[in-house]
Amino acid sequence: MVNIAVLGYGTVGSGVVEVVNTNGSRISQRIGDELNIKYVLDLKDFPGDPVQEKIVHDFETIIEDEEVQIVVEVMGGIEPAYTFVKRSLQAGKSVATSNKALVAKHGAELLSIAKEQNINFLFEASVGGGIPIIRPLNSSLTADEIEEITGILNGTTNYMLTRMFYEGADYEDVLKEAQEKGYAERNPEADVEGYDACRKIAILSSLISGQQVDFEDIYCEGITQITAEDMKYAKGMGMTIKLLASSKRYAGNRLHAIVAPFLLKADHPLYHVDGVFNSIFVHGNVLGDAMFYGSGAGKLPTASAVVADVVDAAKHLNRNIMTMWKEEKLRLEEKAGAKRRFFVRIKGEEESLLPAIQDSFGDVEVVRAEGLDGEFGFITPVMMEGDYEVRARLYREQILHMIRVEG
Amino acid sequence: MVNIAVLGYGTVGSGVVEVVNTNGSRISQRIGDELNIKYVLDLKDFPGDPVQEKIVHDFETIIEDEEVQIVVEVMGGIEPAYTFVKRSLQAGKSVATSNKALVAKHGAELLSIAKEQNINFLFEASVGGGIPIIRPLNSSLTADEIEEITGILNGTTNYMLTRMFYEGADYEDVLKEAQEKGYAERNPEADVEGYDACRKIAILSSLISGQQVDFEDIYCEGITQITAEDMKYAKGMGMTIKLLASSKRYAGNRLHAIVAPFLLKADHPLYHVDGVFNSIFVHGNVLGDAMFYGSGAGKLPTASAVVADVVDAAKHLNRNIMTMWKEEKLRLEEKAGAKRRFFVRIKGEEESLLPAIQDSFGDVEVVRAEGLDGEFGFITPVMMEGDYEVRARLYREQILHMIRVEG
Repeated sequence: MVNIAVLGYGTVGSGVVEVVNTNGSRISQRIGDELNIKYVLDLKDFPGDPVQEKIVHDFETIIEDEEVQIVVEVMGGIEPAYTFVKRSLQAGKSVATSNKALVAKHGAELLSIAKEQNINFLFEASVGGGIPIIRPLNSSLTADEIEEITGILNGTTNYMLTRMFYEGADYEDVLKEAQEKGYAERNPEADVEGYDACRKIAILSSLISGQQVDFEDIYCEGITQITAEDMKYAKGMGMTIKLLASSKRYAGNRLHAIVAPFLLKADHPLYHVDGVFNSIFVHGNVLGDAMFYGSGAGKLPTASAVVADVVDAAKHLNRNIMTMWKEEKLRLEEKAGAKRRFFVRIKGEEESLLPAIQDSFGDVEVVRAEGLDGEFGFITPVMMEGDYEVRARLYREQILHMIRVEG
Repeated sequence: MVNIAVLGYGTVGSGVVEVVNTNGSRISQRIGDELNIKYVLDLKDFPGDPVQEKIVHDFETIIEDEEVQIVVEVMGGIEPAYTFVKRSLQAGKSVATSNKALVAKHGAELLSIAKEQNINFLFEASVGGGIPIIRPLNSSLTADEIEEITGILNGTTNYMLTRMFYEGADYEDVLKEAQEKGYAERNPEADVEGYDACRKIAILSSLISGQQVDFEDIYCEGITQITAEDMKYAKGMGMTIKLLASSKRYAGNRLHAIVAPFLLKADHPLYHVDGVFNSIFVHGNVLGDAMFYGSGAGKLPTASAVVADVVDAAKHLNRNIMTMWKEEKLRLEEKAGAKRRFFVRIKGEEESLLPAIQDSFGDVEVVRAEGLDGEFGFITPVMMEGDYEVRARLYREQILHMIRVEG
């Protein structure tokens, strides 16, 4: 029998219990041994819930029980999760977690403890919810240099942008609707400012580079400035706007990482990813393009990924699955050096402004949106962010909004 | 040092050599040991090619060399591939193969030999080319009951249907074009009759059921009967036609498997998979929907998957990665019991035929395509294939074509 303890009986924790109850016999068959949830750690009691008999309030019960071989951490936040996970690993218990904040900050250290102990620290659910992406990166895409990983990694903002695209709705209205449906929290900052996506792309960047990428170093711009007018321009150009979290390799191990709204053409694999779904596009130097799509959040999809990690941990009880992620920090490339095109909305008349704009930005493509008078848009040729910024300063008074263009 | 031998220096074999040469240092880092191609088996010599010094003509050289720990089989076909692979496994050498015919026919037996020997038989490249699907099914989607796996598993036919969709072209014209571009072979039967996709869905069905699914038992219909007129109807309904290979779980371990052209709505994740790309949609009972997308064929993407298997084999040299696929045969459900809707093109006038059709098929939805006179189409309600067939017999003279509707 393989005994596990679940830390936290919230949404994901109760999902983990449900998945084990629902698919227990198939899961045990895959492990080759019976899987048993011995403890569930929570501050609260759950009278009437069948889980009540497993509930403990003190982590010491779990850490001291040598029968517990795998700890599932689904509490979220840095503390006490970090302390509990670290102590579990040091005590020789493998850990599966869905906690992106913990993984982004302490992933390298926790992996190295797991390696020393010849056990495992697994975190498939921390990025992309139920979508298998961490394990494919670690054990399937191993013949490639990953040159790009670009994802729609936040379901809340993708739901909002999808509504804005199809209904021409305003940001404030779709936010309210998302909150009413429970897709967005009352304080939606972590989602709409891009912080959630930023932690996830930091984790993916660390994995493809093998070094620590700090999320604080990644330029992060949310969707709060995206308007119905921006989306109107996008549609007029046969494009849409998506919040992308992206990491691209330049020469060697140099990465450009960014979280920001991007204009995407209809032939981009991420263009059609609608609603709360997540999707991760990967380009390998020999594989070419690949994409992984699915539910990026939600109780059962996330629990599915956590329990899959438990199965993997149970199949590798005394054997470390090597994951390359050193604590040594990777210095990201400056945003100013990233090359791309920029879509700019500008106040004023095309006739009077265009000659100067062409002088500054080169051969721009002028874009009009129906019903938007007294303004126009243009797309620059490919240029460095730094060069764009210098030139944009000249039009500080006239520029209404700038959105980056992907591809 | 980990020594490997490559059987066959054709397209995939030369791709494997190229991938190892290109990404060798990263690959060795992931293995934790240096990867060395010691032999390449081929009937021919390759004077001037750097591979010439590794070329051997006799398999005995490889099987007798105890330094060879992993054998890569990329010859294709059943014999001599089957004999070589079986002997390699029996001699304690792990095998990675891209050979779908071999895996579909002998997968269960070869896996069981690998298990006895405590080594590995891996075949990621046999389905979906470079797309990671076999390993995700085996080691990522392990908390789920997989209730459906439906894929676009053949790039040639998907390229052809894509051209027919966007250009309104005829089947014969796009086949000729695909042959000129090298996407279709001179004898295109294996692709256009669905045989290639059928072997792949047989492999996937075996993996999700854990039992042998013979491809001969799967109903298989190719795209040779699809016309420009069919596609016109599809577009008019906001749908497209794709060659799907699908396996769906009914109660318990009962599977319905089929390869056939299907009408797909625009909101289906596979609708947007265009050109030579492949994509595999998976529905798990807790995961929900997921999709894996990428290059389903081609020298380097396929080689990328083969070499990833080599890396996995090298990391598990004396340890079997459990794969559930018993030799015991799974009896597939009868096609007659599958439930779905059917699109039917019928010769004649709606006014005179519709009352009888409604009598037979129930509340059908009539469909018209611009410029197609003297015929009309209708979509049936959801019904069993068997019931459809009985009713369709009454209209044998009038039915021009039937295409199944997915979802």
